[in-house]
Amino acid sequence: MAAAEVKFGGYGRFGVIYDEGVESFEQETRIEQRFRFNITATAETDAGVKLEGRIRLQSDDSAQGSAGGSGPGAAGFAVSTGGLRVDVGHISDTLDSGDVVDYYGKGVGLTSFLEYNAAFGGFDANGFGSDNVARQKVKVKYSVGSLTLSASYAGENKDDPGDADDFVADSYFQIGAGYSFGDNSVGIVYGSRDNDADESYIAASFNGSVGDFSYGVLVGDNSSDVDADDFDVAYGLYGAYSVSSATDITAVFSGGGADGDDDAYGLGFKHGLGGGVSLRGGVGQNTSGNTVADLGVRFDF
Amino acid sequence: MAAAEVKFGGYGRFGVIYDEGVESFEQETRIEQRFRFNITATAETDAGVKLEGRIRLQSDDSAQGSAGGSGPGAAGFAVSTGGLRVDVGHISDTLDSGDVVDYYGKGVGLTSFLEYNAAFGGFDANGFGSDNVARQKVKVKYSVGSLTLSASYAGENKDDPGDADDFVADSYFQIGAGYSFGDNSVGIVYGSRDNDADESYIAASFNGSVGDFSYGVLVGDNSSDVDADDFDVAYGLYGAYSVSSATDITAVFSGGGADGDDDAYGLGFKHGLGGGVSLRGGVGQNTSGNTVADLGVRFDF
Amino acid sequence: MAAAEVKFGGYGRFGVIYDEGVESFEQETRIEQRFRFNITATAETDAGVKLEGRIRLQSDDSAQGSAGGSGPGAAGFAVSTGGLRVDVGHISDTLDSGDVVDYYGKGVGLTSFLEYNAAFGGFDANGFGSDNVARQKVKVKYSVGSLTLSASYAGENKDDPGDADDFVADSYFQIGAGYSFGDNSVGIVYGSRDNDADESYIAASFNGSVGDFSYGVLVGDNSSDVDADDFDVAYGLYGAYSVSSATDITAVFSGGGADGDDDAYGLGFKHGLGGGVSLRGGVGQNTSGNTVADLGVRFDF
Repeated sequence: MAAAEVKFGGYGRFGVIYDEGVESFEQETRIEQRFRFNITATAETDAGVKLEGRIRLQSDDSAQGSAGGSGPGAAGFAVSTGGLRVDVGHISDTLDSGDVVDYYGKGVGLTSFLEYNAAFGGFDANGFGSDNVARQKVKVKYSVGSLTLSASYAGENKDDPGDADDFVADSYFQIGAGYSFGDNSVGIVYGSRDNDADESYIAASFNGSVGDFSYGVLVGDNSSDVDADDFDVAYGLYGAYSVSSATDITAVFSGGGADGDDDAYGLGFKHGLGGGVSLRGGVGQNTSGNTVADLGVRFDF
Repeated sequence: MAAAEVKFGGYGRFGVIYDEGVESFEQETRIEQRFRFNITATAETDAGVKLEGRIRLQSDDSAQGSAGGSGPGAAGFAVSTGGLRVDVGHISDTLDSGDVVDYYGKGVGLTSFLEYNAAFGGFDANGFGSDNVARQKVKVKYSVGSLTLSASYAGENKDDPGDADDFVADSYFQIGAGYSFGDNSVGIVYGSRDNDADESYIAASFNGSVGDFSYGVLVGDNSSDVDADDFDVAYGLYGAYSVSSATDITAVFSGGGADGDDDAYGLGFKHGLGGGVSLRGGVGQNTSGNTVADLGVRFDF
Repeated sequence: MAAAEVKFGGYGRFGVIYDEGVESFEQETRIEQRFRFNITATAETDAGVKLEGRIRLQSDDSAQGSAGGSGPGAAGFAVSTGGLRVDVGHISDTLDSGDVVDYYGKGVGLTSFLEYNAAFGGFDANGFGSDNVARQKVKVKYSVGSLTLSASYAGENKDDPGDADDFVADSYFQIGAGYSFGDNSVGIVYGSRDNDADESYIAASFNGSVGDFSYGVLVGDNSSDVDADDFDVAYGLYGAYSVSSATDITAVFSGGGADGDDDAYGLGFKHGLGGGVSLRGGVGQNTSGNTVADLGVRFDF
């Protein structure tokens, strides 16, 4: 009989981060930290169906210089068998799950302060974390050969709209498909919100690698007109090159999107030190036009 | 030398729950989830005395559709040697500890939304959990042969009665005895609160099994007259039958108690899938007269 | 390749504590409890550099009789190689780290309700815990032979001074040196705060052992004049004697410091029961002139 099991995983990172665009009381240069601790329980039925539940504890710094913990937040669950996987609770959407689209690509720096989706405002990408959630989700992923289909639904929460503390949230759904061929994969996701504006959005990615070089392209548009800013097609690019077996360099660009946004771009490196430890850093400009840079060490466990 | 040790245990469950009796902003049908994670540290002295301490992290859904975590709450401790066990801190009362009385019996459904104590309002049964507590408790259990004696005391908390956020609570004690013979056990608990009304209560259970059939009866009365409702003798019954090695069916009834309450009854099933995983569900009516039903999967670890 | 690892440690304790000096709604005699649970992740690079990150969960009682949990708080990190160790985040200051000065010595009783630094008001000694922190720290420790140098810096936090909830805090630094010879060690720490009063302080300790007897002396002074009380040189003494392989007796005295303070003194014992379990207790007078006593059991894991 397969037995239930508890596993622990996560990472720690600390270093220095610089952000030109700080507001009052925030610090331009400060100590950065995160300690992420995932608690995952797994079980497997006699028929081979796998179940999983997880919660997270986490510590983070703030821009004012403080640091504090959060969690346990809401739990996420998964059931999988063969090519089918169903996630329930506090889980990723189809868009940010990686099921069919690579929404994050490769980030820049210790903290991934820049990713190629930087210009993608107005999309729903609310993954698992150490926080509580207004609404739970269900996501279904089905893979057959090189093709993957995925759909997710976030339920609504009509908690007292007159109470500022309450969790009022509209429902939304996403649906997508992805296909991989050789070292490449392509995917697309469509999402729609059940609100007065009937907002919808679409995003597609193309990712792959050639030898020591890997790359990704992300394109998206949304019909959001609640925002005063006009929104053009948003897009992002990254390229990463393995200089040696231990060292990677990554360049990221993200543009389009909200009319008031600047283009964001950055360059980062990661140097493995063995034992799950790496030195990481990067420098770039964010969509507010401010320079951001970080440097530090991260260890995965 | 016996060494100290850390153990982890708990369960995850998720599914769908229906409750006819929802209030404004609550959802009749919604995703149900719980992830319970107990952290237990144990030690044993050279003389064989066992010590234990535990805290809990937990995630639960709400009736509005949100989900969130709680804990760590207050810790519970235990010392045991031979037939004697002393519990201290955030612990069960004699009534709900299972020491002498079976206060919960077998519940209905994925969430045990109905238990045979459903009609037992006005009893103190405040077990261990992921919450903080207004007062700590001490419980002593002593077993000799088939006889078990148990007594518990919850200290008072006189924290500022004028401050709504404070933890004001009266003390109370419980005392009980239980006896087992063959596959049957009988027990009784008496409890008394040190408040103006000098409230007291008594509860007794009879439980056992014959082949694939198990059953339980719970009876209780309390002298509470703070409640505007009159309170009659409350009682509960359950019967469970093992249809096969993997499948159990449970029927529960609970009646009497507060005059305004409806009888509560329900029928549930549990089907083991191996590996600590089971499919569970049930349907019934609660003491408010509303239909409740649930269905889902649970895995214990 | 050295692999990352997760370790758990801490202790549980419970018993009874008496404090003559309780305020309204507090209880003179009450159940005492603590459950401390440290989660530590470690990694080691191929070159032998060790990294560590940790968070803490904890439960404690309150003087009103309640009990509750805290954490995860902010994380602390460390990097060490050879004689060099750098700590970052939620960490001890040089003073209370034990790097060069023994700021705590041996405490009295189950709860260490009295330590020889009892009279040392106005010093910065803010170690790791299950709380959040207003500012993060960096500490560097370097040991060569019998000599150890240590320096720490706590960054400032200028979070909105007009908001009561915010974390406003000045920066401060500490620097110290320690030297060990045979079974003895001596150390000194100087600290200075970047506030209007330019407060500074100095503390030195001398500790050692002769056979079954161990002892410590702590002396300190500070220039704080924000406090209305005048502050004299504060000092503390402890002596501990191992009556047998399992039993220690400890006497502690702390005097001087704020003019309004009484001398504090106490006597405690610790009796090992094997398996990481010990019986502990003590009685004494604190700096407010009130008698305090405790008794209980503690198990380390």
